[in-house]
Amino acid sequence: MSKTPLILVTNDDGIFAPGIRVLVEEMKAFGKVLVVAPDKPQSAMGHAITIHSFLRLQRVELMEGVEAWSCNGTPVDCVKLAIYKLLGGSRPDLLVSGINHGANISINVLYSGTMSAAVEGAMEGIPSVGFSLMDHGIEAEFAHTRPVVRRVVANTLQHGMAQGICLNVNVPRADHGPLKGLRVCRQARANWEDEFETRLDPGGKEYYWLKGEFRSEDHGEDTDVWAVKHGFVSLVPVQYDMTAHHAIAALNTLDHAL
Amino acid sequence: MSKTPLILVTNDDGIFAPGIRVLVEEMKAFGKVLVVAPDKPQSAMGHAITIHSFLRLQRVELMEGVEAWSCNGTPVDCVKLAIYKLLGGSRPDLLVSGINHGANISINVLYSGTMSAAVEGAMEGIPSVGFSLMDHGIEAEFAHTRPVVRRVVANTLQHGMAQGICLNVNVPRADHGPLKGLRVCRQARANWEDEFETRLDPGGKEYYWLKGEFRSEDHGEDTDVWAVKHGFVSLVPVQYDMTAHHAIAALNTLDHAL
Repeated sequence: MSKTPLILVTNDDGIFAPGIRVLVEEMKAFGKVLVVAPDKPQSAMGHAITIHSFLRLQRVELMEGVEAWSCNGTPVDCVKLAIYKLLGGSRPDLLVSGINHGANISINVLYSGTMSAAVEGAMEGIPSVGFSLMDHGIEAEFAHTRPVVRRVVANTLQHGMAQGICLNVNVPRADHGPLKGLRVCRQARANWEDEFETRLDPGGKEYYWLKGEFRSEDHGEDTDVWAVKHGFVSLVPVQYDMTAHHAIAALNTLDHAL
Repeated sequence: MSKTPLILVTNDDGIFAPGIRVLVEEMKAFGKVLVVAPDKPQSAMGHAITIHSFLRLQRVELMEGVEAWSCNGTPVDCVKLAIYKLLGGSRPDLLVSGINHGANISINVLYSGTMSAAVEGAMEGIPSVGFSLMDHGIEAEFAHTRPVVRRVVANTLQHGMAQGICLNVNVPRADHGPLKGLRVCRQARANWEDEFETRLDPGGKEYYWLKGEFRSEDHGEDTDVWAVKHGFVSLVPVQYDMTAHHAIAALNTLDHAL
C-alpha cells in the first residue's frame, strides 16, 4: 500500500497497561497510530457493548506523536467509537488489540475483550489481530513479544486478511525460554472447571468470587494449547460465523412441524 | 430419559421480563425447573463474565413450584453460578435461555447475552437452546412462540444435541402473520452500520449514545435473515469453535520466521 497505513490500537487491560504501550511503540514504525482503549480494566468482557448507558471519550497523553483516547466502555465499544465517531465511518488499515496481560488460547477467545475487539474489527472489514502474552503480571516481560508483533503485522499489511476472519496470537512467557517459532493452529477443545469461593460480608450475607481452572483434554499438536506449551507462538485464524455448518444435515432429519 | 429432566432457565432481559415467564411456564411441563437470571437487563453483554467484582444470588418468587434466583452478574455468570454453586458441579439435562425481547439473528449471536448463556451451556456439555422473539417491546405478544419452544425442546430432550453446539432460535413477530414453519439455517453475513448520537451534559461535556442499523447483503435462502423475513422460525446450530479452519492452509504459506 502506498499511503501511510492508519493503525487502530485497543486492548482490554486499559489504556495505561504496559502491554498496550509495547504495541503502540511497535506500530509507530508501521504507520499513523490511533489509540482508543478502555479507561479501566475490561478483561473478560467478551463481545459486550454499552446500550443501556452512554459513552464518553477522553483525550489522553500516552506517547509522543500518538493520538490517544480513553473510553468508559468495553473494548468493542472502543472499536465502534473509533470508526463511527473519531474516523467518521472510515476504516483504519489495521486493527491491533493487546498486548493482553494473560493468555487467550482455546475457548478464551469468547471471554476475551482483547479478542472481541479484533473480532469486531473483522466484522467491520478491517484486518485485525489480537496479541496476548501468557503472563498476567503487571510487570510481565514483553521484550520477546516485539519480533512476533512485527512479523505478524508486516505479513498482515503485505498480504491482507481473508474476509470474515481475524488472528489470535498468543506468546509464551519470557521465562519459558527462547521462542521456537510461530505455528498456525486451531483453537483447542478445552473447558473451565469453575469454582466459586464463598465469603461473608460484614453483615453476614454471602457473596461469591469466580475461580476457575483451565482444562484441556485435546492433545492435538495442531492446537494453540499444544503450541504455547511447547514454546511456540500460536496463531489461530478466528471467524465470527459461529454456524456449526456440519450440524445442519442432522438437524434437518428431525421433525420440526409446529 | 427415564428420570425427570432438570431444566436450567436463564435470559438477558432480567428475571422479571415477560419472556422468561413464558419459557418457565412451558418448561414446567417437561421437567423440574431451576431459574437463575440477571437481576437487571443484561442485553448485549455478550460472553462477559464478572472477574473484577463479586457475585450474589438472591432467592426470588417467580412462579409456584419453581426455584428461582436472581443474580447481580451477566447471563454467563448465571450459568456458571447455577452449575458450580447451586448444583454443586452437576449439569442440568437442558439449558434454555430467553425468550429474548428482540432478534438475535446473524452476527447478533456474538453480542447477545441470551445466546452467550446458551453457548456457555454448550461449553459445559449441556444441550442448550436460546430463544428470541423479533419484538423488543415489553408488551410483546409471545403466544405464538409457545409451540416453537415445545417443539424444539421436545426434539432436544428426545434426540440430544451434538457435542460442541447449541441452538439459536428466532421467531418472527406475532403481527407478521401465522408462522410458516421452522427452517434450519446458517447465520447470515451481515453487519451493523453504527452511529453515535452526540449530546451535551448540563456541564457542556459531550457524551454518546450508540445507535445502529442492521444491514444484511446476504440474500441466501439458507440464512436466518431470509427465514424470519419470510415468516419462518430460524434455527441455527451455533458452535464455540471459532477457528476459521478454511483459512489455515493459506496462512501456512506465509513466512512466519521470528
